[in-house]
Amino acid sequence: MEKIFCPGFQAAGVEANIKKKGIRDLGLIFSEVPAKVGGVFTRNLVQAAPVVLDRELIQSGQARAIIVNSGNANCCTGARGMEDARAMGQAVANDLKISSDQVLVASTGVIGAPLPIDKVTAAIPELVRSLSPGGFSDLALAMMTTDKVPKLVSKQGKINSKTFTVTAVAKGAGMIRPDMATMLCFVCTDIDADPDYLSYALYMACERSFNLITVDGDTSTNDTALILANGYSGVSIENSIHKASFQGVLDDVLLYLARLMVRDGEGATKLVEINVTGALCDEDAHAVVGTIGNSNLVKTALFGEDANWGRIIAAAGRAGVCLEPDRINICFNDVMICQNGMGYGGEAERQATLVMKKPEYAIHIDLQMGNGKATMYTCDFSYDYVKINADYRS
Amino acid sequence: MEKIFCPGFQAAGVEANIKKKGIRDLGLIFSEVPAKVGGVFTRNLVQAAPVVLDRELIQSGQARAIIVNSGNANCCTGARGMEDARAMGQAVANDLKISSDQVLVASTGVIGAPLPIDKVTAAIPELVRSLSPGGFSDLALAMMTTDKVPKLVSKQGKINSKTFTVTAVAKGAGMIRPDMATMLCFVCTDIDADPDYLSYALYMACERSFNLITVDGDTSTNDTALILANGYSGVSIENSIHKASFQGVLDDVLLYLARLMVRDGEGATKLVEINVTGALCDEDAHAVVGTIGNSNLVKTALFGEDANWGRIIAAAGRAGVCLEPDRINICFNDVMICQNGMGYGGEAERQATLVMKKPEYAIHIDLQMGNGKATMYTCDFSYDYVKINADYRS
Repeated sequence: MEKIFCPGFQAAGVEANIKKKGIRDLGLIFSEVPAKVGGVFTRNLVQAAPVVLDRELIQSGQARAIIVNSGNANCCTGARGMEDARAMGQAVANDLKISSDQVLVASTGVIGAPLPIDKVTAAIPELVRSLSPGGFSDLALAMMTTDKVPKLVSKQGKINSKTFTVTAVAKGAGMIRPDMATMLCFVCTDIDADPDYLSYALYMACERSFNLITVDGDTSTNDTALILANGYSGVSIENSIHKASFQGVLDDVLLYLARLMVRDGEGATKLVEINVTGALCDEDAHAVVGTIGNSNLVKTALFGEDANWGRIIAAAGRAGVCLEPDRINICFNDVMICQNGMGYGGEAERQATLVMKKPEYAIHIDLQMGNGKATMYTCDFSYDYVKINADYRS
Repeated sequence: MEKIFCPGFQAAGVEANIKKKGIRDLGLIFSEVPAKVGGVFTRNLVQAAPVVLDRELIQSGQARAIIVNSGNANCCTGARGMEDARAMGQAVANDLKISSDQVLVASTGVIGAPLPIDKVTAAIPELVRSLSPGGFSDLALAMMTTDKVPKLVSKQGKINSKTFTVTAVAKGAGMIRPDMATMLCFVCTDIDADPDYLSYALYMACERSFNLITVDGDTSTNDTALILANGYSGVSIENSIHKASFQGVLDDVLLYLARLMVRDGEGATKLVEINVTGALCDEDAHAVVGTIGNSNLVKTALFGEDANWGRIIAAAGRAGVCLEPDRINICFNDVMICQNGMGYGGEAERQATLVMKKPEYAIHIDLQMGNGKATMYTCDFSYDYVKINADYRS
C-alpha cells in the first residue's frame, strides 16, 4: 500500500491496554498549524460523552487534534463520563502544549462501562512521541473494534492548478441499519475553508456514502465524522467551482471507506449493491431499497448463494410504498430472474446463482411505476455475524 | 397431550409429496354443518393467490372447509396461481360434495414456484377419507415449514351455563418482524355468531397475540387467520357480555399459539418478554419495544447470554420517540441492571446473566416519562437462524 499522509498533519496509534495486550487502542491526529473544523454526529438520542463534548468544541470552528480510543465507548457513563472525556482531551493538550479547547475526543467500544481514564492518560506521552506524518496506518489500527481491516485512504485533487489532499481514516464493520456498530471517520485536508462550509461538505459526503449503508439515518450512540482543514496547500475554497472540485474528492474518499465498511461487515462474505428504479419518487425508492437491504431473510439468502427473489419481492411489498407486484422486474447483475412479478425459474436461476458466487455484484429492482431511484450497499448475513455479536463482550 | 377436537369439526393431514417423502404437507378442516366465517389477512402488497381467493370467498359469510398445503406458497405465480388455488378448492368441494364457494384455501412455503397442483389433487381423495374429529394434530403437522413443533390448542368457555369450544391450529416459526415466515392460523369454534363479528373478534385477538410478535403490522405474502363458527354448542353470541366471554377464550388460544411461535422461532433458544413502561404514550412504547425486540444486536446478545444493556438503551435511543436516556431503568426479571441510564455493573450483571440462562424471562424498560406501555415477545438470534435461512431452498 502506498504511504498515506496529508501535508501538515501527523498521526499515531499506540497500545494503552484498554483492550487486550498487543492491540493498539489509542490514536491521535495532530495538525501542525491551527485547522478549521467541521463535524457530523449521531442522531441517536443516547449520545456518548465524547459526542456531547465535540458538539460543543467545534462551535469555535477551530481545532488542532483528535484523540480516539477503542475498547470503550464512554457512553451511558453519566457525569463521570463527561469528566473522563474532558480529561482525555486535557492530557493531550498538556502534552502538545495547546489549549484543551482545540482537542476533539472520540471513543468506540462497549457501552456502559466507565472509561479506564488512567490507562488513557498514562499512554498519552508515548502517543504524542509517536506522532509522524506517516502515522495514519497506526491510527487506523487503533480505532478498530470488530473491523478486520484498517480503513484509510488518501486522494488528491487540483484547484487553480494547485494540488490539495484529502486523507481519511474510518472504523466500522457493523451490520447495516438498524444495528451498525459505531462509525467513526476523521478527514484531514490541506485546503482552507470556512468551518460552516466544512460541516456542510462533510454532511453531503456522508449522505452519499455512509448513509447509503446506514439508510434512514439510524445511528449508534457514538457515530462521529470530523474534518480538519489546515490550509497547508494554499488552496482556498472560495466559489462554487472550488466547492464542486473539493466535494468530488471528499465524496470519493468517503464512498471508498463506506464500501470498505460493508465489505468488512461483521461476518460478511459479499458486498452487494442494491438499486431500486422505477419508484413513484426517490423517497419511495429509498424505502424499498432499505427494506430489501436490511431484510435478514434476503441477507441470509445472499450468504447461502440462493437466488431467492421471492424474498426480495416480499420485502418490497412491505416497504409501505405504492407499488404493483406484477410490474416488478429483478436482475442479478444482467441476469433477469423475475419479470412482471413472475419468476423465470430454471436456467435464469442457475445463471443468477453464478452471479451470487462473486464477492461483489448488484441486484436491480425495477418497480416500473415512475422515475424514483435509490441505491444502497449491503452485505450478506453469516454464522460469523451471530458469533461476533453473541460473544462481543466475552 | 390431551386429544384436540372441536364439536362438529373434522380434520386431516396427509402426504401429497409436495415436500420430501414421509412428511405430511396437505391438510383439511371440515365443518359437518355450514359455518359462519371470518378472516384476517396479510397487509403486504404482494399477496399469494390463496389470499386473494379467500378474501373474495369470505364475503359470503359462510364456509365449510379449509384446505392448506405446505412446501409451496403459490405466490408470484400469476394467473396460473389463481387457477391452481381455485382448482385446489374445487377438488375438495367435489370430493366433499359441497359448493367450491365453501372451500377456503391456504398455502405456505417457497415463493415464486408454480404449485404442483396435480400432486395436490391426486392426494385429495385420501385427505377427505382421513377426516376425523381427532385429526387436528395431523393437520398441524401438515402445515409446518421451518416449525420444529406442531402448534394446536383447544380451550373451553361457558356462556349462559353452556360450554363452548375454541380449537386452533397454527404454523409459523419465523423470526419476528420484519422477516416473519408465513403465519397461518385456523380457528374452529362451535359458537354461533355473525360473520362480521367473527372477523372483528379474530382481528382483536390477533392484535393481542400474533401482532405482539410481528409488531408494526409487517407481514409475509401469505399470512392468513381464519375462523369457522358452526353453532354446534347452541351458544349464540348476542350481547356484549357474551362477546367478552368469547373474546377472552379466543385471546387465550391465540396468545398461546403466538408464544409457541416465538419459542419455536427459527434457531431460537429463548422466549423473552419485553415490557416498555413510562413512555409518553402507548404508541411511543410500541415503537421502543419494537426497536429493541427486533434489534439483531440485542437478539445476538440474548443468545450469548450477555446482559449487554448498552445495546438495549442504544436501540431505545433510535426508536424515533421522545425519551431522556438518563431516566431509563432496565431490569432482567427483577434484577435492576441500569438505573437512570447508568449501569450497576459487577454483581447486578452477574445476577442478570443468571436470569438470561433461563429459557423464558422478561426484560423491563422503564422510560420514566409518562404512562405509555407496550409488550412484545421476542427470541434470541442464533447460528441456526442463519443456517435455516441460508439453506432454506436447498
